[in-house]
This record gives sequence, C-alpha cells and structure tokens, in this order.
Amino acid sequence: MDDQDRERIEKIISDRKKAHTYFLNNSEVYRSFVEMEQKAYSDGELEKKYKELIAIGISIIINCESCLEWHIKQALESGATEEQIIEAIEVGMEMGGGPATVSSRFALKVLNYYRDR
Amino acid sequence: MDDQDRERIEKIISDRKKAHTYFLNNSEVYRSFVEMEQKAYSDGELEKKYKELIAIGISIIINCESCLEWHIKQALESGATEEQIIEAIEVGMEMGGGPATVSSRFALKVLNYYRDR
Amino acid sequence: MDDQDRERIEKIISDRKKAHTYFLNNSEVYRSFVEMEQKAYSDGELEKKYKELIAIGISIIINCESCLEWHIKQALESGATEEQIIEAIEVGMEMGGGPATVSSRFALKVLNYYRDR
Amino acid sequence: MDDQDRERIEKIISDRKKAHTYFLNNSEVYRSFVEMEQKAYSDGELEKKYKELIAIGISIIINCESCLEWHIKQALESGATEEQIIEAIEVGMEMGGGPATVSSRFALKVLNYYRDR
Amino acid sequence: MDDQDRERIEKIISDRKKAHTYFLNNSEVYRSFVEMEQKAYSDGELEKKYKELIAIGISIIINCESCLEWHIKQALESGATEEQIIEAIEVGMEMGGGPATVSSRFALKVLNYYRDR
Amino acid sequence: MDDQDRERIEKIISDRKKAHTYFLNNSEVYRSFVEMEQKAYSDGELEKKYKELIAIGISIIINCESCLEWHIKQALESGATEEQIIEAIEVGMEMGGGPATVSSRFALKVLNYYRDR
Repeated sequence: MDDQDRERIEKIISDRKKAHTYFLNNSEVYRSFVEMEQKAYSDGELEKKYKELIAIGISIIINCESCLEWHIKQALESGATEEQIIEAIEVGMEMGGGPATVSSRFALKVLNYYRDR
Repeated sequence: MDDQDRERIEKIISDRKKAHTYFLNNSEVYRSFVEMEQKAYSDGELEKKYKELIAIGISIIINCESCLEWHIKQALESGATEEQIIEAIEVGMEMGGGPATVSSRFALKVLNYYRDR
Repeated sequence: MDDQDRERIEKIISDRKKAHTYFLNNSEVYRSFVEMEQKAYSDGELEKKYKELIAIGISIIINCESCLEWHIKQALESGATEEQIIEAIEVGMEMGGGPATVSSRFALKVLNYYRDR
Repeated sequence: MDDQDRERIEKIISDRKKAHTYFLNNSEVYRSFVEMEQKAYSDGELEKKYKELIAIGISIIINCESCLEWHIKQALESGATEEQIIEAIEVGMEMGGGPATVSSRFALKVLNYYRDR
Repeated sequence: MDDQDRERIEKIISDRKKAHTYFLNNSEVYRSFVEMEQKAYSDGELEKKYKELIAIGISIIINCESCLEWHIKQALESGATEEQIIEAIEVGMEMGGGPATVSSRFALKVLNYYRDR
Repeated sequence: MDDQDRERIEKIISDRKKAHTYFLNNSEVYRSFVEMEQKAYSDGELEKKYKELIAIGISIIINCESCLEWHIKQALESGATEEQIIEAIEVGMEMGGGPATVSSRFALKVLNYYRDR
C-alpha cells in the first residue's frame, strides 16, 4: 500500500485515541456511549465476530472511514477471515449501489494495512 | 399484534410483489440489480443467515421498513433465531443512536408478525 | 390503483398545501426557500423537464415520497414521458441499491395516479 | 387537526411505549442508550430546552417523525415557545433544503396536537 | 494542534471563500440560498447563538466538516461557550451513535483551532 | 487549480482503478453491479448525458466526491456543457441546502480539472 494511504489510516487511529481520552474525561454522555458500545459488540447469541461484520456493512453504507478501520480491525481480531469481510462489504454494495463501491475502496486499504502488519 | 400493524406489513409485501413484477418486465437495470442481490445473499464464506443479519443492521440505520420486513423474513428462514436478530438490531442502535431505536420498533412488529404465522 | 394508495397521495398533496400556506405567512426563511426553488427549476441551459428528472433521481435516493409526488407531476407537466421518468428512477437504483428499489415503488404509484387522471 | 393526523401521532406514542418496555426488559444495549439519552438532555451549561431544540433541528434533517413528536413535546414542557420551535425548524430548512420542508409539515402537526391538549 | 489539522481547517476556509465568490457571481439559486441562510441564523425568538448550536448538532449527524468549522466559529462569535458547544455535540452523539463520535473529533479540532487564535 | 486539489482528484481516479480491478477479479456481486451501471447510463429514452446529470445531482446530495469526479467526467464526454452541470448542481442545492453547497465546491474543482486538460 502507498504511504499516503498508510498515513491516512494511522491519522484516523491517533485522532480516535486523542478524542477518546478527551471525551472519556469530559463527557458523561460519551461514557454511556462507550458502555453501550461494549455491550453491543460482546459475544451473545451472536458471536462478536458477526456483530463486527454487521458494523462493517453499516459503515460501507454511511461511508464512515474511521468506523471501517475500527470494525475491520475488530473483525479480524475476532477471527473473521478477509473473505468474510469482503462478503460483508458485498452486502453493503447491494444495499448501497455505486456510492457503496466507493466506501469499499477504503475498506480494501484497511485490509491491506492489517495484512501487512 | 394489532390489525393496523399487520395490514401495514402485508401492504409492504403486496407492494413489493407488484413493483417487482413491473420492473422485472420493464427494466434491464432492475434485472441486473436482482442478479446482484441473489449473489450478495447466497452462501459463501459467510452463510446467508449472517448476510441477512448484516442487511438487518443496515436497514435499522437507514430506517427502511420494507428492507426490514424482507431481511428479517429471510434471516428467519435461513435459521437465525429471534435473539440473534435482536442482537443485530442492537448493533444498529450503537451505530445509529436514538433514530435507530425508532426503526427497531418496526423490526419488533415484523418479528411478531412472523412468530404468529 | 387501490384506494389506499390514492388516499396517501392525496393526503401528501393536501398536507403540502396547508403547510405551504402556513410557512409562506409565517417564515421568511421559507419564503427565501421558495424563491430558491423557483430559480432552481426554471428553464436555463437545461430545460425544466431535465431538472425535474434530476430531482426525481435525488428523491429516490433519499426516499422522499412527497418530493416524488411533486417532481413527477412537474416532470410530466414539463413534457417528460413515463419512460424517461422510469430511466431517471433507474439511475436512482444504480446510485442507491436495494433501498432505492423500495422508493421506486412509490414512484410507480405516482405515475399511475397521474395517468388515471 | 384532522383525525388521521391525530391517530398517526397517537400510534407513534403507543408504539414507542410498547417497544420501550420490551427493550428495557430485554436489551442491555438499550438500557445504556437510555442512560446516554438522559444525560444528553439534562440541564448543563445549556438548558434542556435548548438541547431539545437541537434535537428538533436534527429530526427535521433526518425526517424522523417519532423523534419530532418526542422532542417537540419535551421542548414545550421545558419551556420552549412555538415560535422558538419554528425557528429551530427553519435552521433545519437551511441545512436540509426541500426535503426538510417536508419533515416540517409533520412538525406543524405535532405542534397543533399539543396546542389542542 | 498538529500542522495537518490546521492546514485542513484552513483549506476548508479558503475553499469556501473561493466557491462562495464563484457562486455569488454565477448562480441565482445560490444567491437565494445565501438570503435564506442569513434569515435562518439571525436573532429572533431564539438568539443566533442557539441557532448556531442547532446547526452544530445537525453537522455532527451528517458529518459535514465544513459546516462544523463554520457553525462553531459563528457560535463562538455569538457568545456560545466551549462547554455549550460540547453539549450540542453530545446531543448529536445521542442522535447519531458511533459515527457521531467520529464527527465529534473534527469538532474538537475546530474548537482547538479557534482557541489558539 | 492548486496542486493539492489536483492530487486529490488524481488519487480518487487511481484508487478507483485499483479497486475496480480487484473487485472485478474477486467479486461476482461487483460484476453484477458493473452490469447494472452500464445499463443505467446507456442511451435510452433519455440520453446518457441527462442520466449523468441526474447522477451529479444525487452525488451533490450524498456528498460523494468520487461519484462527482466520475459523473462530471462522463457528463462532459457525453456532451453536457459546464453551464448544464452547474444547473444540475443547483438542483442539488435546492434539495440539500447548506451541506449541498459544500459538496458543490468539490464539483467546481472537478470542472476546473477537466477544463485544464
């Protein structure tokens, strides 16, 4: 992957960390959000892995690059394969048409980024 | 469930059928869409059931009632449990906040509708 | 077309009229909006007809039923054919995937409504 | 206001109550959401009233009728005047163009509904 | 704040100026839009400051960085405090879930940018 | 136009090419999408040029920069004039308000990019 793409992904990661620290310290609303987030993605009747794949599909539809970076990483760490992530992206394409194919490009970059590491 | 909710769900189903027939006969673009749809939801590295759960999460986010009716039915027929569908909805809540809790109400109605049958 | 669909379309029309009167009388912001609207859809380098078709494509993507009713009527009155409106809807399908096929159903109802009259 | 509009608003209210009870009993994610909601709308540096007006502006943009019903009621109960609510809607129009004028119609109905009571 | 963030904010500002000049000179539609904008944000029953906070909440939901830059600046100049802006962002989080926490990061950068100046 | 804008447009073009190749080779869903796309934009009752203008209006509303780059190029190659493209953007402004004026800035850059070449 080219340097520009790598830097963009790493900027997303460092931006998230900084804002996360700020909001954890300053926002009760955010702290409840984090609690909600932890519950939403923990293993239940559906394993975490599948929940992350749902979030990937949603991220494709709303074109949220930071969400794609996060949920693809989480999916990989929960045992999802690249092929399964691609199939989640394909569901996003069916639900989002042309603009979803644009979001999908960033998803590919994130997959490359974590494959290289 | 009350009659009004049942009628609304059944109107969605009959509207879809009518429009599907019209577009199949009149639109090449739609026929390619249907082909894309069939490929997107067939078993792959990810079973159809999980793909339908992804589509449910997306439908919660975009508040598409017809999509919810369709993908919840497909998920149930592919072996998803009600609990798994609720957990897919919860991912939608995390990704969509308050408005996603509104879409979730319709999802509950669809679950009731298919449980009664 | 069935009575329920006809009533829904006519409710949209009467709701628009009532709110239009209210906001014209009470909102300077709305009056500027109406001015912007009139300019946006008047004949220019692009005839009004084609501008209405653009608005139809947008309405499919954002699933705005009232917008579909309005812009399909305007398109027909500006000389667009049903076939051209269907092709504008098809562009919407390409840009919106599955959920756009849902919005398209309402567009068909509006076409039927104005054909019958 | 006509009966159809009144019934639609009351259906929204009863649907919310039913789903709220269900999710409170069955979803930890939802319980965290409710906690987040309570914190987000409590008096702070900004009074609850102004926070509800922000939510009204957002609801206009995303065309969430249930959100409009809820936040308009909350705004009125927190001391917002009808004129202030109309001005929040106007901000929504500036940020949302034509489709926001459609959402605004439902907001007017909600205002009428609570004025009558 | 880091240089990259500062440059991004300043690029937004200079892009807006250039396009504003172009459209003012070339588009009647845009001129009506600007008129609508001025009316929407002028003091009324609601002070400009609160209207800008509504626009911030909306900008969080639609993830519009240029809107965040503009409306945060306007809010600060109209007398809103940083704490009030954070609370407007929190309403956005409640209405937008995870993706709204992503938009919020950019809002923090804009707050830093104007604090430094 | 400045170098930064040119590089951004050229990055979009090269990103699209790379992802297009990947998905063509690896995704049946994407191949059906491409088929749908080709049908959606071919001459019919509506010439390709007008279909591209519809896609431009949609792209303004959803703020899809890659879509703007693609459809503006296609529109120009199909015989649309700059004035017609600006009028399509104006329809987008009417349907999208303030945030659409933000997307419009990128559209201007794309117009400049292709005018220079």
